Amino acid sequence: MENLVSLSGFPEGDLEATIVENFVVSTLQRTFELHGFARLSTRAVEPVKELLAKGETSKEIYLLRRLQEDPVRAAQSKKQLGLHFDLTVPFARYVRENAGRLDFPFKRYQIQKVWRGERPQDGRFREFIQADIDVVGDGTLPFAYEVEVALVMADALAALPIPEATILVNNRKVVQGFCEALGIDDVEGALRSLDKLDKIGPDGVAAEMRELGFAEDAIAKLAQMAQIGGGASEVREGLAVLEVDSPTLREGVDELCALLEETDRRRPGRVRAQLRIARGLDYYTGTVYETEIAGHADLGSICSGGRYDSLVRQGKRTFPGVGLSIGVSRLVSRMLSASMVSVSRKVPTVVLVAVTDEEARPDSIAVAEALRERGIACDVAPEAQKFGKQIKFADKRGIPYVWFPLTGEVKDIRTGEQVAADPGTWMPPAVDLHPEVRPA
Amino acid sequence: MENLVSLSGFPEGDLEATIVENFVVSTLQRTFELHGFARLSTRAVEPVKELLAKGETSKEIYLLRRLQEDPVRAAQSKKQLGLHFDLTVPFARYVRENAGRLDFPFKRYQIQKVWRGERPQDGRFREFIQADIDVVGDGTLPFAYEVEVALVMADALAALPIPEATILVNNRKVVQGFCEALGIDDVEGALRSLDKLDKIGPDGVAAEMRELGFAEDAIAKLAQMAQIGGGASEVREGLAVLEVDSPTLREGVDELCALLEETDRRRPGRVRAQLRIARGLDYYTGTVYETEIAGHADLGSICSGGRYDSLVRQGKRTFPGVGLSIGVSRLVSRMLSASMVSVSRKVPTVVLVAVTDEEARPDSIAVAEALRERGIACDVAPEAQKFGKQIKFADKRGIPYVWFPLTGEVKDIRTGEQVAADPGTWMPPAVDLHPEVRPA
Repeated sequence: MENLVSLSGFPEGDLEATIVENFVVSTLQRTFELHGFARLSTRAVEPVKELLAKGETSKEIYLLRRLQEDPVRAAQSKKQLGLHFDLTVPFARYVRENAGRLDFPFKRYQIQKVWRGERPQDGRFREFIQADIDVVGDGTLPFAYEVEVALVMADALAALPIPEATILVNNRKVVQGFCEALGIDDVEGALRSLDKLDKIGPDGVAAEMRELGFAEDAIAKLAQMAQIGGGASEVREGLAVLEVDSPTLREGVDELCALLEETDRRRPGRVRAQLRIARGLDYYTGTVYETEIAGHADLGSICSGGRYDSLVRQGKRTFPGVGLSIGVSRLVSRMLSASMVSVSRKVPTVVLVAVTDEEARPDSIAVAEALRERGIACDVAPEAQKFGKQIKFADKRGIPYVWFPLTGEVKDIRTGEQVAADPGTWMPPAVDLHPEVRPA
Repeated sequence: MENLVSLSGFPEGDLEATIVENFVVSTLQRTFELHGFARLSTRAVEPVKELLAKGETSKEIYLLRRLQEDPVRAAQSKKQLGLHFDLTVPFARYVRENAGRLDFPFKRYQIQKVWRGERPQDGRFREFIQADIDVVGDGTLPFAYEVEVALVMADALAALPIPEATILVNNRKVVQGFCEALGIDDVEGALRSLDKLDKIGPDGVAAEMRELGFAEDAIAKLAQMAQIGGGASEVREGLAVLEVDSPTLREGVDELCALLEETDRRRPGRVRAQLRIARGLDYYTGTVYETEIAGHADLGSICSGGRYDSLVRQGKRTFPGVGLSIGVSRLVSRMLSASMVSVSRKVPTVVLVAVTDEEARPDSIAVAEALRERGIACDVAPEAQKFGKQIKFADKRGIPYVWFPLTGEVKDIRTGEQVAADPGTWMPPAVDLHPEVRPA
C-alpha cells in the first residue's frame, strides 16, 4: 500500500492506496452532505487573469497551450488558460457568474484535483486532491457559519482513522486591532512575519519586524501576543496582561471567544485559539483556521481557511463567505506512510468462480451472474487450470472465496472451510461486500 | 438542470446536473466493481513523448508550462508535460511501469477527466469525464475477455436511465483478412476510408479508395462488406455471398461470431455486428466496439474501444489487452438536454431546523445533531426570521421538511402536514435520504 512516483510531484496510488483515498473522499463527502452542503464541480481550467487576480500565487500556476499553438503567441494571449491551483478561486468565479441562479446562503463542497508548479519537496505535490466546504451569503453572512464550518470539519476529520485533529483558530480583527492599537499601519507586514514564526523563530520574526520599521515595544507586544492560545478565558486573560486596546481588537476578541465557547460546548477541545496563526492569504477578514493532527505537527496544517468578506464581488454586490479546505492527498499520503490504516483486500471481488473445463464455462458464468444479481462482486477464472492454480489466482488478489460449480460448493480460502451453497441465496458470512479500510 | 458554459468547451453543471453526473459515475462504478474491476487513478499529466507515442492525436494535446518558465525553452524541453487526452495511454504507461507488482490478467476501471484542445463544437468538450474498463494480460489474454468487457458495458449502460444501448462490434481481422483476400496492402487506408462512411457517404468512400489505387471490384466488395451487420448468421451469410476468403478473414469471422453467439445467449440483442466499424486507432488488433443509444444516433458512439495486442510493451514482453471507454460527459450532457431524468431535490438536506429566536438556537442545533446522528442531512436556519420566511428558505432549495423545536413538530412543506416528532427516532416517511435521480 503506497504511492508510486515515476514523475516527481505526481504520485499515483497502487490499488490499496486508491481504496484508502476513495474511502477518505467518501467519508468527507458523507459528513459534508449531512450538514447540507451540496456538491459542486468546476472545470479544472481558468483564464489566467482569474488565477492571478488573487495575487501572490503566480509562481505556482501551470499554463496551457495547444500543441499546434505558437508558444510565444500563446504566452501573450489574453485568453490564455491555466490549471486551477485551489478550489477557492474557481468557486468565487462560479458564484460571481451564477449569482442570479443560486440560493444564498449557498453551501457547497467541492472535492477535486488542483495543480501547482511548486518544487515537489517536503511532501508537497504538483497534482493533488483538495476537499473544500464554503458558505457564501449575498451581502451579509451570519457569524454562526464561522462556527459551523469549523465543526463540520472537526466531524469530518473525526470520522477518519487518523489521530485526533485540533482546529486552531485566530481572527484577523484581533491582529488588525492589536496592530492598530500599537500604531502599526503595515498589518500585512506583521501578518507575513508572524506567519514565519515556525520557519525563522521569534528572533527572526523580530528582526524582520525591525526592518519593517516597527517600534521595539510593539515588536515585543506582538511576540507576546503570538504566545497566546487555548480557550476563551486564556485568550481574554492573555490579552488583558498586554494592556493593548482598540475597537477592532475588542470586536475580534469577542468573535474569537464566541467561536471558542460555542465549539467547546458542542465539541469540547476540538477547536483551540492560537493567536500566532496568520494565514498567507490577504483576503481573509475574520476567523482564520489551521489544523494539526496529534503527533504529526511536521505535516503542517491539513485543513485551513477563513472568513472572507469581499473575495466574491459582482459590481457593487459582495458575497461574503467562510470556508475550509482539506489537503486530501497530503493527508492520505501520511496515512499510507505512517501505516495508519490497513485494507482488507485490493480488489472489489468477493468470489472467484472456478472453471472446471472450458466446456463448462457457462456453468461458472451462471453462478457469477446469480451472485452479482445480489450485489456480490465476482470474477470467473480466466482459464480452466488445475483448481490449485485457480485458488492461487484468488489468493494473490486477496479474493476470499472460491466457488466450485461442479460440486456446488464454496471455499473460504483463508480458513480452508468448504460448504455446499446455492448462488441464489448464499451470502459471504464473514467478509464485507466492499474492501474495508480499517485503523491499523 | 443544465450545463453552464462561461468558457467554450468547458461546461460546468448546476447543482442538479452535478447530482446526475455523480449518479451516472457511481452507477458505472457499481457495475464495474460487481465484475471485479478494481479502481485505479492515474495522474492527469504525462510527458509529451508518452502522449505522442500513439501518433495521430497530436493536435488535441494541451501542453503545460509554469508561469515563470520561458515559453520557448519550455516548448523545446524534452521533459515537457501535457494533460492526458484519454485514459488508455496513461493506463498503458502505468502497466508498463508497474508490471512487476501487478497481478495479470489485471482488471481495472478508471473514471477521470481528460482534456482535448479540439474546437468545441458538435457537442465535443475540451474537458470531460471518461469511464474506462480494461483487462490486460501478461503475454497472452484469453478471448473470453473480449466477450466480458462488452457485457460489462451492456450491463452498465442498462443500469442508467437512458434509452436502450446497442454495442456494435467488428473485428480487425475481418477487415484485415478481407483486404488481404482482395490483394489490398493498405489496410490502414481501407480502415480510414470506411471510418468516414457516415461523413462522406458510400460514393465519397469509393472515391477515396480509388485515390488510394484500390481496384474497382475490390472497392465494390468492400462497400458490400460494409453493409453487413446483425447476428452471427447474418455475418456468415452476408460474407458467404461475397466469395472472399483468407485465413485471417476466417479467424476474424470465427471470433466475431463467437462473440455474437455468446453475447446473444447472455444478453439477447445487446451486441450486434456492423462490419463498417473501423475505429480510428491503429493499435486495435481484434474486436472493436462502438455503442449507439436508441433514438440518439446523432450523438455518435458513447462507448468505444477494442482489443489491442501490443499497445503495452516492456522490452520483449507484451501485455495484450481489451477495453472500452464511456464518454460520461457527453452522455450526461444529452441526458440533461433531452430531459431524460429528473432530480428529486438539488441539495442533500432533508430537514431544515427552524430557529425560534437567536437565544433558542442551541435547541435547533440539538435537533439537527440528533437527526444527523441517524444519517438525516440537516440545515439549521441561518436567521431567526418569521417562520414563513424560514419555510420559504426550505422551499426554494427543495428541502422537504421543516422542524419546529419550540413545538417539537415537523412539517412536510409539500403537503402541509405537520406532526409531533422526536428527533431521536423520526425518519422521513416519504422521501429519500439522498437526492434521487429518476427517469423523466
